[in-house]
Amino acid sequence: MSLRSSLSRLLQKQAHSVLKKSVHSVAVIGAPFSKGQKRRGVEHGPAAIREAGLLKRLSNLGCRVNDVGDLRFTPVTNDELYNNLIVNPRSVGLANQELAEAVSRAVSSGHQCLTMGGDHSLAIGSISGHVQHCPDLCVIWVDAHADINTPLTTLSGSLHGQPVSFLLRELQDKVPSLPGFSWLKPCLSSPDIVYIGLRDVDPAEHFILKKYDILYFSMRDIDHLGIQKVMEQTFDQLISKKQRPIHLSFDIDAFDPSLAPATGTPVVGGLTYREGMYIAEEIHNTGLLSALDLVEVNPLLATSEEVKATAGLAVDVIASSFGQKREGRHDGYDHLPTPGSPDESDSEECVRI
Amino acid sequence: MSLRSSLSRLLQKQAHSVLKKSVHSVAVIGAPFSKGQKRRGVEHGPAAIREAGLLKRLSNLGCRVNDVGDLRFTPVTNDELYNNLIVNPRSVGLANQELAEAVSRAVSSGHQCLTMGGDHSLAIGSISGHVQHCPDLCVIWVDAHADINTPLTTLSGSLHGQPVSFLLRELQDKVPSLPGFSWLKPCLSSPDIVYIGLRDVDPAEHFILKKYDILYFSMRDIDHLGIQKVMEQTFDQLISKKQRPIHLSFDIDAFDPSLAPATGTPVVGGLTYREGMYIAEEIHNTGLLSALDLVEVNPLLATSEEVKATAGLAVDVIASSFGQKREGRHDGYDHLPTPGSPDESDSEECVRI
Amino acid sequence: MSLRSSLSRLLQKQAHSVLKKSVHSVAVIGAPFSKGQKRRGVEHGPAAIREAGLLKRLSNLGCRVNDVGDLRFTPVTNDELYNNLIVNPRSVGLANQELAEAVSRAVSSGHQCLTMGGDHSLAIGSISGHVQHCPDLCVIWVDAHADINTPLTTLSGSLHGQPVSFLLRELQDKVPSLPGFSWLKPCLSSPDIVYIGLRDVDPAEHFILKKYDILYFSMRDIDHLGIQKVMEQTFDQLISKKQRPIHLSFDIDAFDPSLAPATGTPVVGGLTYREGMYIAEEIHNTGLLSALDLVEVNPLLATSEEVKATAGLAVDVIASSFGQKREGRHDGYDHLPTPGSPDESDSEECVRI
Repeated sequence: MSLRSSLSRLLQKQAHSVLKKSVHSVAVIGAPFSKGQKRRGVEHGPAAIREAGLLKRLSNLGCRVNDVGDLRFTPVTNDELYNNLIVNPRSVGLANQELAEAVSRAVSSGHQCLTMGGDHSLAIGSISGHVQHCPDLCVIWVDAHADINTPLTTLSGSLHGQPVSFLLRELQDKVPSLPGFSWLKPCLSSPDIVYIGLRDVDPAEHFILKKYDILYFSMRDIDHLGIQKVMEQTFDQLISKKQRPIHLSFDIDAFDPSLAPATGTPVVGGLTYREGMYIAEEIHNTGLLSALDLVEVNPLLATSEEVKATAGLAVDVIASSFGQKREGRHDGYDHLPTPGSPDESDSEECVRI
Repeated sequence: MSLRSSLSRLLQKQAHSVLKKSVHSVAVIGAPFSKGQKRRGVEHGPAAIREAGLLKRLSNLGCRVNDVGDLRFTPVTNDELYNNLIVNPRSVGLANQELAEAVSRAVSSGHQCLTMGGDHSLAIGSISGHVQHCPDLCVIWVDAHADINTPLTTLSGSLHGQPVSFLLRELQDKVPSLPGFSWLKPCLSSPDIVYIGLRDVDPAEHFILKKYDILYFSMRDIDHLGIQKVMEQTFDQLISKKQRPIHLSFDIDAFDPSLAPATGTPVVGGLTYREGMYIAEEIHNTGLLSALDLVEVNPLLATSEEVKATAGLAVDVIASSFGQKREGRHDGYDHLPTPGSPDESDSEECVRI
Repeated sequence: MSLRSSLSRLLQKQAHSVLKKSVHSVAVIGAPFSKGQKRRGVEHGPAAIREAGLLKRLSNLGCRVNDVGDLRFTPVTNDELYNNLIVNPRSVGLANQELAEAVSRAVSSGHQCLTMGGDHSLAIGSISGHVQHCPDLCVIWVDAHADINTPLTTLSGSLHGQPVSFLLRELQDKVPSLPGFSWLKPCLSSPDIVYIGLRDVDPAEHFILKKYDILYFSMRDIDHLGIQKVMEQTFDQLISKKQRPIHLSFDIDAFDPSLAPATGTPVVGGLTYREGMYIAEEIHNTGLLSALDLVEVNPLLATSEEVKATAGLAVDVIASSFGQKREGRHDGYDHLPTPGSPDESDSEECVRI
């Protein structure tokens, strides 16, 4: 054995150990829940995302996938309106309690955790569960909407427009005790969350963002700064002083409706495909992504072609968040096969580690 | 009454007075005129823009709308070709004279003035009318085309490709006396106008832009600089030394044809939705917008779906020019309702000022 | 004759001589070849591009067009698989030898040379032919793919995914002697080539790009830097120390599939129309473009509307590369016609030089 091939073996070995460290173990949780809003169909989001090839894409990336399957939320029978306005409070409260337990279990077992919605009210449970194991986490909320109405400012009554108000300590005395939510403790402070993609913000929400000095990048800010500066400033705010786990809560409606038509509250003028991938790649590159929500894919609100596109986009966001790179990767390659060498006859086996 | 609620009242009062100042009073003029070009249909532009919800959007923004209705231009019977080439000179001249009077009336009554075309030859009247009350105005011309041929360089003979040549003092001796135009005085100098969005410029037009040193940002310049620097340099040129009224003349064909298909002379490679909104928001933010033309929506040149999209885009440009913000606004909000407080039972009434 | 009009004549004369120098003479070579990949139809690319108005667009730009027509490649009868994997090696080798001769002839006759594919394996011949007359050329490769697999790393066996490996001196000992390729000498070194637009790179390709330190700008890099900085850094690498001829090898699949659907291996998240034009304009503006490949338009893989769009896009890239400008041009104009002057009666004749 020549010196060169010994060296090559050594390099292979090192690559191998790096590879092992860099293999993600991802828990995949389906959360087929739709009672945080009023349109039928978003409970089929997890199935659509799976059909678009999620699991294969993750394992192709080298992720070890731990598929928890779809949660079966306990049904709530007599779920009355709260305050004559808020829809399904007990259903939403209970489902989130159950999701919180599942996410907590996944994270404490050492997995990165993917929650596929379902509607965005699920972030209450997902973040609450994540925070049990990672009390110093921060949140990047990618969305056309701020989802920060309180039950007293909401115009629609849907809880998927309110999850952040339940999570913020600063708003604790503005949020009434809803049936089904007694288990919940606010766990975020306003400097812990950054929004990206806003373009449909209610007056009360705008008031909250400003009053509590919450950092947000509206589509206008992205136009003004460019997506790369937006990500820089996001990381400056959240992780420049201290490395801490990132919870990415990604609403598919952050994308332009031409890309993600199969969703309940589309708003014109959204993220491009490339901006979405850039956000996900940048978050992956921090090495700090700990949990990801991908929500609001609704297969009943569009043609089958459009559903396929929307779910495929969701898979692309997830894959990029967990390490897919547009420039490619060469994990395991450490040399090229040479004509006439044993490599040539069966290059695959020899070169891939 | 506690100290806090007195303070809150005081703040409400101040907000109220600011609000009053910031309420726009907008005169809306329909100009259903199409004789500046050769295709049927652009005279239905005002109706399409109204149907897309213009008036409601403006009043939702807090604008006081003064709807002047659609002008009824005096018909011209025997309108002969000028120079065997120029089409409908007397019709175009007279219609613009009538529009100029309407715009002058609106501006001198203290309104911001919106003119909905119709074809872009209308800018002759709109700017001439505006300048009567605001002699130091400047013009931002957003368009795929420079519309600066003279009647002696035009290749098409259509006057909607020539309005700027009639307005520029520097070109006075290059523009022949057309029948119908004796009322008109050139009122702009070349440093008073900036173009944004150019991508289909005739050789004579390019010669004029260069010879008279007119600032323009072609699509290539937008690609090179980014839309935020384009707006900075536009304002540097026009309003950095002296605050003065802005006349925004916006041809819907500045947008990419995929966004604005219902128009007479679409050109590939145009503004994105977000660039268009950014331009309008930036102009609004100067506080200097005094008149706006929105022209060249032609409902007969596309499917009904495409017409809806194009007219909706026109409404979005207009709304953003008059204060709509993608990041939202919280006019009137000065506190959040608290559970158990009188706010909760009827938060709307109490919190909105 | 007044002083002014003498001056004007003088300026006309100078413009004329500049014009003469700036007239391009472009040799147009059709290369209807498809055996570098496995899908039918890309051999009809040259016809589709011609039908989209190529020749007229070039002559409108003032180019002298020398249409060589479509090459008739010598058919190869018994073309066996190489290494049980590589498809049509002898056909690809021979066609490229023939193309190399045609390109060499065109360039040595003083033409800029346009090669219309056909598949991207043709770059082997096009660059080899070009290099015979321009040994110090550099290459800008605009593509979704790196096309740099060796015959020993390819996963598909198609040679259109491997042309760069045949051209790079650094890879000479990694590329086996394929039947049909004995004429070929590697002619590029890794600092001579820059990639733009990559977003689907095989692991072995990524390994090669990194190992040989080849400069590339993936779509992520374009998102990060912006297309203007990408072009600056491209020129810094290739022509800042020494002016040298540029070979632009442009795969239509560099564009987003929504713009260029009629191609064999589309990949989501590609160049916008405007980025494509910017790249071509910037390369034209160097004054150094010497040869251009436009490849992979496949009219059998899309609807006729989509084929038209794709071929039209190809023509736009070609036209911009050879001098079309979005801001317009005024070649030949040196003054404006004045009313009452002889110009007025027939302005065209007098003003255009």
